[in-house]
Amino acid sequence: MLRLPCFPTATIVLASTLLAAPIARSQDLQALTTASREQLDVVKVLLAQQAAWNRGDIDAFAQNYKDAPDTYMVTHEISKGFAGLVEEYRHDYPTKAAMGTLTFSEVEARTLDARFAIVLGKYRLDRSKKEGGAAEGVFTMVLENTDKGWKIILDHTT
Amino acid sequence: MLRLPCFPTATIVLASTLLAAPIARSQDLQALTTASREQLDVVKVLLAQQAAWNRGDIDAFAQNYKDAPDTYMVTHEISKGFAGLVEEYRHDYPTKAAMGTLTFSEVEARTLDARFAIVLGKYRLDRSKKEGGAAEGVFTMVLENTDKGWKIILDHTT
Repeated sequence: MLRLPCFPTATIVLASTLLAAPIARSQDLQALTTASREQLDVVKVLLAQQAAWNRGDIDAFAQNYKDAPDTYMVTHEISKGFAGLVEEYRHDYPTKAAMGTLTFSEVEARTLDARFAIVLGKYRLDRSKKEGGAAEGVFTMVLENTDKGWKIILDHTT
Repeated sequence: MLRLPCFPTATIVLASTLLAAPIARSQDLQALTTASREQLDVVKVLLAQQAAWNRGDIDAFAQNYKDAPDTYMVTHEISKGFAGLVEEYRHDYPTKAAMGTLTFSEVEARTLDARFAIVLGKYRLDRSKKEGGAAEGVFTMVLENTDKGWKIILDHTT
């Protein structure tokens, strides 16, 4: 069976403080000194997702997913394809108020090899009762290092 | 950034009939002719999981997960580590009756490269009301091609 050269898998755990604050605190920076370039790049995708969501920018949010027919979005059911994914987000979150405020926490990024990574953690969505109220849960994602940077190819959020 | 030689990603979709029947029907075999060796090996893990579960063999079921401290089992929360995962299964499903009958369906296996693959699909668990009743949902998994064969390194089941 074909075997690629071994690329060591590695995991980075980030405290929620880092994701909440654009400027990392000293203890976070210390924790990051052992993180690889790839891990930081992967975490940046999550930071970009959170920031895009919180300014109500679905387009920028969607751009973190790979524009491919086999990109998966899984909630209580499985959706396949980037186009449908964007449509669903637009339908479910038509306004900034409906989007609310998204916060990721307890994020772990694990590079599998130079091309693929896993990210998982918790999310919390704060919004008014009128807009559906607060929600929270867990997510697992698989990301691919494409020629346009790291993109989400599978998002399972529950 | 380090780049591994490109390994084409490919997806195989299997009808539930294949997973339900040990002997594949002719139309299934025809569909399989385009599947790679890796994809079939990945699907075999799912078949083995289903078979082990349905004979009440938690040990064999657990062996399809990678025995590593960073193997993830995600439901409504995140568990990390093979040992805890096995303990949880034993605790939650102490008897064959509690395990019931597991059926995977609409399974898609996608090889990312020679070392990693994604599998996702639906599951259904049939068991008596006394044992908690039937349950169904979706799962996404990431598998690694280890020296002991393909093993699950991330299982998100909801």
